[in-house]
Amino acid sequence: MSFHSMWAELLPIGRAAASGGYRRFAWTGADADCRAWFAQQARDRGLTHEVDRNGNQWAWLGDPAAGDAVVTGSHLDSVPDGGAFDGPLGVVSAFAALDELRRRGARFAKPLGIVNFGDEEGARFGLACVGSRLTAGALTAEQAHRLTDAEGITLPRAMEAAGHDPGALGPDPERLARIGAFVELHVEQGRALDLSGDPVGIASAIWPHGRWRFDFRGEANHAGTTRLTDRRDPMLPYAETVLAARREAALAGAVATFGKVAVEPNGVNAVPSLVRGWLDSRAEGQDTLDTVVAGIERAARAHAAAHGATLDVTRESFTPVVEFDHALRDELARILGTTAGLKVPVLGTGAGHDAGILSGRVPTAMLFVRNPTGVSHSPAESATEDDCTAGVLALADVLEGLACP
Amino acid sequence: MSFHSMWAELLPIGRAAASGGYRRFAWTGADADCRAWFAQQARDRGLTHEVDRNGNQWAWLGDPAAGDAVVTGSHLDSVPDGGAFDGPLGVVSAFAALDELRRRGARFAKPLGIVNFGDEEGARFGLACVGSRLTAGALTAEQAHRLTDAEGITLPRAMEAAGHDPGALGPDPERLARIGAFVELHVEQGRALDLSGDPVGIASAIWPHGRWRFDFRGEANHAGTTRLTDRRDPMLPYAETVLAARREAALAGAVATFGKVAVEPNGVNAVPSLVRGWLDSRAEGQDTLDTVVAGIERAARAHAAAHGATLDVTRESFTPVVEFDHALRDELARILGTTAGLKVPVLGTGAGHDAGILSGRVPTAMLFVRNPTGVSHSPAESATEDDCTAGVLALADVLEGLACP
Repeated sequence: MSFHSMWAELLPIGRAAASGGYRRFAWTGADADCRAWFAQQARDRGLTHEVDRNGNQWAWLGDPAAGDAVVTGSHLDSVPDGGAFDGPLGVVSAFAALDELRRRGARFAKPLGIVNFGDEEGARFGLACVGSRLTAGALTAEQAHRLTDAEGITLPRAMEAAGHDPGALGPDPERLARIGAFVELHVEQGRALDLSGDPVGIASAIWPHGRWRFDFRGEANHAGTTRLTDRRDPMLPYAETVLAARREAALAGAVATFGKVAVEPNGVNAVPSLVRGWLDSRAEGQDTLDTVVAGIERAARAHAAAHGATLDVTRESFTPVVEFDHALRDELARILGTTAGLKVPVLGTGAGHDAGILSGRVPTAMLFVRNPTGVSHSPAESATEDDCTAGVLALADVLEGLACP
Repeated sequence: MSFHSMWAELLPIGRAAASGGYRRFAWTGADADCRAWFAQQARDRGLTHEVDRNGNQWAWLGDPAAGDAVVTGSHLDSVPDGGAFDGPLGVVSAFAALDELRRRGARFAKPLGIVNFGDEEGARFGLACVGSRLTAGALTAEQAHRLTDAEGITLPRAMEAAGHDPGALGPDPERLARIGAFVELHVEQGRALDLSGDPVGIASAIWPHGRWRFDFRGEANHAGTTRLTDRRDPMLPYAETVLAARREAALAGAVATFGKVAVEPNGVNAVPSLVRGWLDSRAEGQDTLDTVVAGIERAARAHAAAHGATLDVTRESFTPVVEFDHALRDELARILGTTAGLKVPVLGTGAGHDAGILSGRVPTAMLFVRNPTGVSHSPAESATEDDCTAGVLALADVLEGLACP
């Protein structure tokens, strides 16, 4: 089955007619359809199909017990109203790359695996990369059992309802020990390749990133009768802080976003008592990120004080930089430079991935495929057919270089 | 029963322990308790008690059918977590003023009425002054029948559940025709009297005011991977507009508030696709208000364009200026100047009132009692005992001047 046919089969699954975006959330019907598609692709190619204890799907050519396996793949779930490429491009390209290698008559000296990691986006239970985290021991079974969706359904109950036994959730070091290299192909979620004019890139690192909650508290009051000078309106320092975040990030070459806000009492005729904004910020280096966030917090405190509001800042999460395996990265650049004559830029990314989770346990690398608009987590996310083909060929070259020496 | 005792009886009704604020919403249990209190006050004073077709409560000394009645009162319901004074001060002061006039041995040449207007705040069904609007014909029965609370309960069903027949809702011109003057006493919802050093003031007018919805639309995107220059983030022009609103209002001596906001998708790691903010703005004159809102909209359009966002502005409601009856206003100033030697400032207000609704049909005036902080629609709303007493005596003087010539 061609790349194009595989793509066409996946396209309708979990697509919301209203937005044109995808709602492929973990352990839902749309997720089951994606999983059935994956199993069928494995069967069609004579691969061994298995679902591991944490709900990740694997398709094997050769016996993984032999060890030093080369694994590729990504995920099939989506964010709410996400695009078609984030995740599926890596899985479809994996099968297409195997087909390409078979066309080339490649002989595999190592087992080859294709993986679909479960619940990468965390859209339903609020935590990203649940499948790979469990496998890598970065999330305990106890923690996973406590994850709950918006309807109050726990992760184990959702798994059970979808036919997966949650009783064996937990770390899977034996499985990881059999993997010699993991390569995830992913659509780029920015415009670096578009700007450099290259169809394919290699990841250097995942930027350190974090979330901070800014609680601005003032005084509820009547919006019609309270003189401006008598107000303690927390919306004003919030607005100043949104603009300060943009300035600080621009100065430092980082990103900083206030994308979520909650207001109390949130009435049209009420000066708010509370404006709570969440800052997401990421930068190439830890020092830069620290500088950006400190600058934003300094501005926020000054503006809060100027408006008679108080400010509490809470760091809700933080992930340090993830450097991908340098040797494997250099090997990928060498393979692509030799076999395809490609100049392959090496780029950092601000997004988290299963590859980032695994990189502490397994030599891991990532390939990025050009995204002409850089738009991501949106129905407008895209990649051209030519670039998708370039991605498949690059992945095939890499797998051949790693598994068929 | 003294002012103090009446006040103490009302204090516990509908008080939320958590906030210390009041939740006396129309046709709830707390509202019924307030109404029972009102009926008891009427009985204790030998007044005739009646509930009109629209659910407003009246207590009469003398026969209103005689015509040219002098009416005072306010409302007993509250905004969510409102203060103790907004509404109840006018009703308690009305009974206390009658007691004072009886102590003085006043002889009434006209019927005297005390009123508790139903559902003034609109906290439950979203529309303010429902009782007075229906009576004045400013709200039709059909419109009232469609009002629905957050639980989906319609106004007529809520009335029925509270024992009031909603079948007769509608205009009540005969009732209004019997009223020669309506005077509402209300706690000031600003600091004008505090700044001028006066315990009591007279209303000149209710400022024109309106609500405008600003829809800033950009492009949903990944907050970690989208370069700042590739974003169309609607949070940025929203923030600029919040600050522009403050600047424009300050320049013009008006008020402008963004107190309510809704964001889509409202995710911490997502550049928003939509930020919807509601502007409440009020000014002493229509021209000033037009200038303020035009200035805010101009700034919003410029900032939206600068950030690649679009902007739609929708005027959701608008109420022109309400000028209270000039002759009655001058009469009040004369009475208070003569009898009490009070210098009584005449002030505009940004808040709506039942008196504003009635002013088109009945000669209407308002008295304000000093609010030392100006805080309103909040548990922190207050007035001193001395100022409440001054308000009662001023109201007694006014009623005596109007009804006992």
